[in-house]
Amino acid sequence: MAKKLKADSKVSSNAAKAEKSASATAVDARAHKYVYMFNEGDGSMINLLGGKGANLCEMTRLGLPIPQGFIVSTEGCTNYNTSGKVLSSEIKQQIDSAIVNLEKLTGKQFGLSNSDKGAVPLLVSVRSGSRASMPGMMDTILNLGLNDEVVEVLAAVTNNARFAYDSYRRFIMMYGSIVEGIDKHIFESAFDNFKARNNIADDADLTAEHYKKIANMFKESYKYERERDFPTCVKEQLFNAVEAVFDSWENERAYTYRRMYDIPHDWGTAVNVQSMVYGNFCDKSGTGVVFSRNPSTGDKEIYGEYIMNAQGEDIVAGLKTPKPFSELEAELPEVYKEFLTLSDLLERHYKDMQDMEFTIEQGKLYFLQTRSGKRTATAALKIAIDLVDEVLITKQEAVLMVDPKQLDALLHPVFDTKALAKAQHIAKGLAASPGAASGKIYFTSKDAERAAAKGEKVILVRNETSPDDIGGMHVSEGILTAKGGMTSHAAVVARGMGTCCVCGLEALQIDEKGKRFTLGGKVYKEGAVISLDGSTGKVYEGAIATVKPKISGHFATFMEWADNFRKMQVRTNADTPEDAKKAIEFGAEGIGLVRSEHMFFDKERIPKMQRLILAETEKERLIACRDLIGYQRADYIGIFKAMGVRPVTIRLLDPPLHEFLPKTDAEFKLLAKQLNARGRDKVDWKQLKLRAASLHEINPMMGHRGCRLAVSYPEIAAMQTRAIIEALVYLKQNGLKANAEIMIPLINDVKEMRFVKNIVLAEAQKVLDETSIEVDYTVGTMIEIPRAALHSFDIALEADFFSFGTNDLTQLTYGISRDDGAKILQDYLDNNIYPNDPFASLDKSGVGLLMEMSVKEGKRAKPDLKIGICGEHGGDPVSIEYCYKLGLDYVSCSPYRVPIARLAAAQASIREEREKEKGLSEVRG
Amino acid sequence: MAKKLKADSKVSSNAAKAEKSASATAVDARAHKYVYMFNEGDGSMINLLGGKGANLCEMTRLGLPIPQGFIVSTEGCTNYNTSGKVLSSEIKQQIDSAIVNLEKLTGKQFGLSNSDKGAVPLLVSVRSGSRASMPGMMDTILNLGLNDEVVEVLAAVTNNARFAYDSYRRFIMMYGSIVEGIDKHIFESAFDNFKARNNIADDADLTAEHYKKIANMFKESYKYERERDFPTCVKEQLFNAVEAVFDSWENERAYTYRRMYDIPHDWGTAVNVQSMVYGNFCDKSGTGVVFSRNPSTGDKEIYGEYIMNAQGEDIVAGLKTPKPFSELEAELPEVYKEFLTLSDLLERHYKDMQDMEFTIEQGKLYFLQTRSGKRTATAALKIAIDLVDEVLITKQEAVLMVDPKQLDALLHPVFDTKALAKAQHIAKGLAASPGAASGKIYFTSKDAERAAAKGEKVILVRNETSPDDIGGMHVSEGILTAKGGMTSHAAVVARGMGTCCVCGLEALQIDEKGKRFTLGGKVYKEGAVISLDGSTGKVYEGAIATVKPKISGHFATFMEWADNFRKMQVRTNADTPEDAKKAIEFGAEGIGLVRSEHMFFDKERIPKMQRLILAETEKERLIACRDLIGYQRADYIGIFKAMGVRPVTIRLLDPPLHEFLPKTDAEFKLLAKQLNARGRDKVDWKQLKLRAASLHEINPMMGHRGCRLAVSYPEIAAMQTRAIIEALVYLKQNGLKANAEIMIPLINDVKEMRFVKNIVLAEAQKVLDETSIEVDYTVGTMIEIPRAALHSFDIALEADFFSFGTNDLTQLTYGISRDDGAKILQDYLDNNIYPNDPFASLDKSGVGLLMEMSVKEGKRAKPDLKIGICGEHGGDPVSIEYCYKLGLDYVSCSPYRVPIARLAAAQASIREEREKEKGLSEVRG
Repeated sequence: MAKKLKADSKVSSNAAKAEKSASATAVDARAHKYVYMFNEGDGSMINLLGGKGANLCEMTRLGLPIPQGFIVSTEGCTNYNTSGKVLSSEIKQQIDSAIVNLEKLTGKQFGLSNSDKGAVPLLVSVRSGSRASMPGMMDTILNLGLNDEVVEVLAAVTNNARFAYDSYRRFIMMYGSIVEGIDKHIFESAFDNFKARNNIADDADLTAEHYKKIANMFKESYKYERERDFPTCVKEQLFNAVEAVFDSWENERAYTYRRMYDIPHDWGTAVNVQSMVYGNFCDKSGTGVVFSRNPSTGDKEIYGEYIMNAQGEDIVAGLKTPKPFSELEAELPEVYKEFLTLSDLLERHYKDMQDMEFTIEQGKLYFLQTRSGKRTATAALKIAIDLVDEVLITKQEAVLMVDPKQLDALLHPVFDTKALAKAQHIAKGLAASPGAASGKIYFTSKDAERAAAKGEKVILVRNETSPDDIGGMHVSEGILTAKGGMTSHAAVVARGMGTCCVCGLEALQIDEKGKRFTLGGKVYKEGAVISLDGSTGKVYEGAIATVKPKISGHFATFMEWADNFRKMQVRTNADTPEDAKKAIEFGAEGIGLVRSEHMFFDKERIPKMQRLILAETEKERLIACRDLIGYQRADYIGIFKAMGVRPVTIRLLDPPLHEFLPKTDAEFKLLAKQLNARGRDKVDWKQLKLRAASLHEINPMMGHRGCRLAVSYPEIAAMQTRAIIEALVYLKQNGLKANAEIMIPLINDVKEMRFVKNIVLAEAQKVLDETSIEVDYTVGTMIEIPRAALHSFDIALEADFFSFGTNDLTQLTYGISRDDGAKILQDYLDNNIYPNDPFASLDKSGVGLLMEMSVKEGKRAKPDLKIGICGEHGGDPVSIEYCYKLGLDYVSCSPYRVPIARLAAAQASIREEREKEKGLSEVRG
Repeated sequence: MAKKLKADSKVSSNAAKAEKSASATAVDARAHKYVYMFNEGDGSMINLLGGKGANLCEMTRLGLPIPQGFIVSTEGCTNYNTSGKVLSSEIKQQIDSAIVNLEKLTGKQFGLSNSDKGAVPLLVSVRSGSRASMPGMMDTILNLGLNDEVVEVLAAVTNNARFAYDSYRRFIMMYGSIVEGIDKHIFESAFDNFKARNNIADDADLTAEHYKKIANMFKESYKYERERDFPTCVKEQLFNAVEAVFDSWENERAYTYRRMYDIPHDWGTAVNVQSMVYGNFCDKSGTGVVFSRNPSTGDKEIYGEYIMNAQGEDIVAGLKTPKPFSELEAELPEVYKEFLTLSDLLERHYKDMQDMEFTIEQGKLYFLQTRSGKRTATAALKIAIDLVDEVLITKQEAVLMVDPKQLDALLHPVFDTKALAKAQHIAKGLAASPGAASGKIYFTSKDAERAAAKGEKVILVRNETSPDDIGGMHVSEGILTAKGGMTSHAAVVARGMGTCCVCGLEALQIDEKGKRFTLGGKVYKEGAVISLDGSTGKVYEGAIATVKPKISGHFATFMEWADNFRKMQVRTNADTPEDAKKAIEFGAEGIGLVRSEHMFFDKERIPKMQRLILAETEKERLIACRDLIGYQRADYIGIFKAMGVRPVTIRLLDPPLHEFLPKTDAEFKLLAKQLNARGRDKVDWKQLKLRAASLHEINPMMGHRGCRLAVSYPEIAAMQTRAIIEALVYLKQNGLKANAEIMIPLINDVKEMRFVKNIVLAEAQKVLDETSIEVDYTVGTMIEIPRAALHSFDIALEADFFSFGTNDLTQLTYGISRDDGAKILQDYLDNNIYPNDPFASLDKSGVGLLMEMSVKEGKRAKPDLKIGICGEHGGDPVSIEYCYKLGLDYVSCSPYRVPIARLAAAQASIREEREKEKGLSEVRG
């Protein structure tokens, strides 16, 4: 190895540089380095080496027992993708060098020629590993390096022909399906047929000779499918496998996963090539997955499963039901003890709960992987708090530890205790992911998706889930599986999604084709309703009432910490006193958006609103306004009372008027009747329909709405203003406080702002003149049209506050209608044109640029201008961080998102503080 | 006066400053100056004093015989409008001082107290005068300063009681109607009734006593209407009149006019207060309007009309039919000679044809006004060229002299000579505004507007037009009046609009109520078709075929001059070889926009396009594409042949697909039949209708269109590319040249650009591979979405050119749908929120800012990036100048707008050159 390095150094024209890169796989210094041995990296190199790779390097540094290997970096993936999907000769050469190094490190040999008699064969695993963990998303190949010759040598040197041929047939199957895309079922049914022909029920009864025959059968299947022989050159196997991993980055389920978790498509994946150790070598061999704490509750207890004489894929896929990790203490006490020591070491090193994969080969422990363990929201909070108590991390680090989106799960319903008390469960499985759910059962992902699209609540029932089921899992209220443990695919994914899951319910007999299952002798057909309790594992027949969870305990502590670091305010969007109260419970510090039009949709009110809209003269409109003002005033009083001194932003009427109008002839007839009953001049329903048709717009989103309504019908804005001001007067008369902000929507010009503001000010003055009571209020606007962002300096001069309406701003900046955009966005996400849905996560470079200009110009005009956001993005953590960086005073989101926003805002503050410290220390350094 | 100045100087703390402002109306130097005597200003002070006021000052400077007076500046108007529509005491004080000055200048006295016996009364006219000429738009009051006492004095000192009381009754009527808003008809019918009661047919038969009685009747009417006496205080009269002029700036017809001529609403108007001279004083008095050249042909001949013993309003309103100016030579030879001398002086001074108003009082000539005369397009060109020949102006000045919009008139149709030869005219009036028009007759502005809205061609027939008729005149093909001369309202306005007009057809007997006229004993009812020749004054029954005018003579010379100064290219938007040829005739230097979808609307092609759209699979789409490619290729070959080496920008399919689909059941049935006839699997029309419905969008303008179609259906973009490239190959094979630019619409992201560009490049490469013929083409994009403007740096890296699609960009920047915006924009223009329609004239501060950013970033990424504009704004002169300043390479507009764009671009170059020279001379100075 040292010799090789020296030889390489000579090639370099810059000796100093070459010496500095004390690289075991050093190549021509002018070339780019794509391949890294495990001892060349560390845990910080996640972007380059992927999470798994960086951790393998870090564990190597820590001295853990790691099967050695090397990593083809994410830059290799980019190079591959931009070079027409071919491994460059540069990368191939670096892999060659790495294999030579690995042979030296392991004393084994990769591929055997006749001259290599007596050497031990080096087999490797080839796995993907991207920056972010994507469990089960990417394909893995084990036992690579076998061919007809090598398998014989392996049998000889291990003195275990059965193991050797078992490994070989597994390899052929994995290689065939993953690298060549041959349907895995072809191999599986060949395997099942063989067992049937030979009357073998249990795999344990298969002999070495059996496996050899099976391997040969697999090679035949391969040849039949691909019209060429299975490759005997191990280098060819390796290069093809690396390419297959790179390709798998772009497969559909990887795409789906990335979209679901906002992982950019252009990150690419690294490839980990690691020397094999064999959990399936003998009965003193095994494999397991263990969490250093309970991922469901967060309790400080080692938590996991293992299977003896099996390879890792068996446990992850849930094919065999594993034993609890605690049983290992009796089975292999030394290994158990060593694992506990090292697990503790890892947790203290990474300062977080670890999810570890290990293999035992002939009684010797190897760590294959460690990473931060996925956990439920409950566990996340408990672990974060415990780690602070254990003085492993600071409160800041604790706050940063919890993904804001996870909090959602804590706010999900649980079964109503009374209803639950009456219910008798029909079965009990593993409590894999907490929460409560009732729904109709469906047996395939597709069926579940179809039903959910119709608005049904769905429970997905599967023998076991696979990455292909992601879509169905995503739309389901709950997931129930017959096979697999707490770390099976279903369990891991459901926890990540915050979806209730019960798994490993072995009593469940599923007839997928017949679309029914049998449980306790009873048949449940597709569409039958069941309930799942993911916190107990219990399954119930029929629906059970659910209740909202109570917020307390760890949640309260954690949120209090978060709030201590948070600098940006969090408000809520709420249209009723009830919403307002709920939001205060969730910690809202004000209302950022009352959609005043929502007050008109009530059954009693809507005919009055319709009358207003269909009025043909200002006089008729004034009469209709008078009919509506009482409702508005009462609603505002209710909201103001609920919010107390907290600010309440009320947006004047925004939607196009035709949204309020009847659609069918019957509805028009009814409305005509109602209007006539009120003593208005007799109206004909057809005349009403004509008037309604005249309000039709081709592009209503860019039509007669927002402040444009106030320009055309000032009396409506005046009526709304009167209702607000009279409500404020009422409160003041009753000794109550309120903090009202009147918001004018859809402004695109300062003169427009001034015009509508003057309507508001004039009407407010009238009320004050009438009552001789002075009340405070402010008048501001939404920035939701590109031109408003561009004209923010002028507009700010007329506004007390800005609120970004990023839904409309995104629509107009992209020129994509939210109502019609689904198909467009799907095609764009599928083709990797947009990194994510700009309506879900703020587009920083486009919409964000307009916001940045607006904030800058607005504050230049009026340094104390209050600025917030009330679009959907106000509840999206990434967007919230961006808003914080822009210097916004608050974000406003739906009540259930308030805790998420509070946490995201706190994290943004902490991260900013850290950046500052980092900057300072860099300056000092 | 000097004394007053001195006294004022003392007040000032800064003596030097006060001395410098040698102001006759000097007030406290700390106060703002709002009032200027005619000898305090000059012709350059148009913004402050209005066009009329500045010219009165200038004429005073030149020593012309001007009735002296003073001007309340446009700043006074702004002050008035922002002070709650009340004249400030500051302005009132300055008016007081000016009146004192005017009394001294004229030796007359304004308002007479008992102590003023023997003094001559000072009467004044009060007129509006804004920066831009707005003929007939603003209200004028004459003879102000009369009351029951003053009129007696006037009668005595003039020894003309009839004149005095005639003036008085006129004043009461004007004051009553304009200042107090009393319906003018109340006075008019009182006048008519008086004449009827006294059996008087002709006004000439009215005596002083009659007029005195009429004046008293008018005062009674005034009192009855306003419940107070007619004001006797002349100061009160004056202040109220000034306020009324300021108010008239905001009346409806002034608004309409400003909107039509793009005059900003916030300019405001100045008020001219001028001592009266009396054209109605005696038979040696008179008034007239004269142009220094023929405003219709441009010929160098004095051209105008006058009426003896009348006031100016009589001639402008067309109430009396005047005599040609030449007849004045016989009537008053001295005055005639003096006028010619001074007219020549003015033309040489202003270096332009003058439109002059004069009054003769007892044989003495007074100039009341001079201004650049409005003229026909033909006259404008001839005058510009003649003035260069006369070495009065440079070619640059000549090019700047013609309003680009006027050229439109030159391109309007004239009657086909053959058709005209057969036609017999039924009457002949005055050839007031050239052009030819056929249409249905309507008798009110409202009826004309309604008919035009239905798509009818309209001829407006009126006894005489008034500013209230502007709307109807605007929508008419031609205008016919029974009364009024060449300088009547109808004639002046029609020439300005470029609308054909015949006026003064006295034989015309109009029955407005009965909606018919009688001419030559024949009755023509509403809706009857007639034809007008505005160049001969002839009127025809029925429609006459029209032909396009030939471009030659002065036009060719003038455009050649313009092109010599022009730096920016002018292209055209054209979809067919015919359009392309027409545009080349008009001077287009390329095609900036071929809307490829227009090729699919042909009757034969549309079912094939519909088949493509309704295809449910890629395979079906590919088959349908094959059916369309031949048409496309042939069209492109035709266009390329027409354009030769000139660039041709072809935009890929842009509109939402549902625009191509049937609307009615019958159409769907027909389509199903057509599709079935072509051997496709039998389709049911209802199924087609369902599929079409699935393409429906709520906001199609922000829907699945533009490049988004290419992302979803790459085969369509590929088909279009193939057609273009095959056309280029065909041309090359035939030794012909072409310059193709493929334009991808609706881009908002660089990755999207790359994606669609790759479809184009790949298909082009296929054609090249098949034919082994290399052809050149470029690929660019439209910048029509705000995000594209913001991402221009990145997008430019993938684009050979940018073309601003300012229609869409304006829609999205404003968030206003063009399809639905009419009502919104109307309300906004009415309320003075927008200065003009942003879809007609580019919004510089919003849309323009995005364009500026785009140009800057685009050129930063790619300095040789070609940039143009193909939205409607490409034909708007103001927008064209802006595009030139932005550094655009070309503008593209409809064929008929090409000459306008050429001239506007030339003017922009010249003005820029002048700015530079000015900058240099300022630096030097």
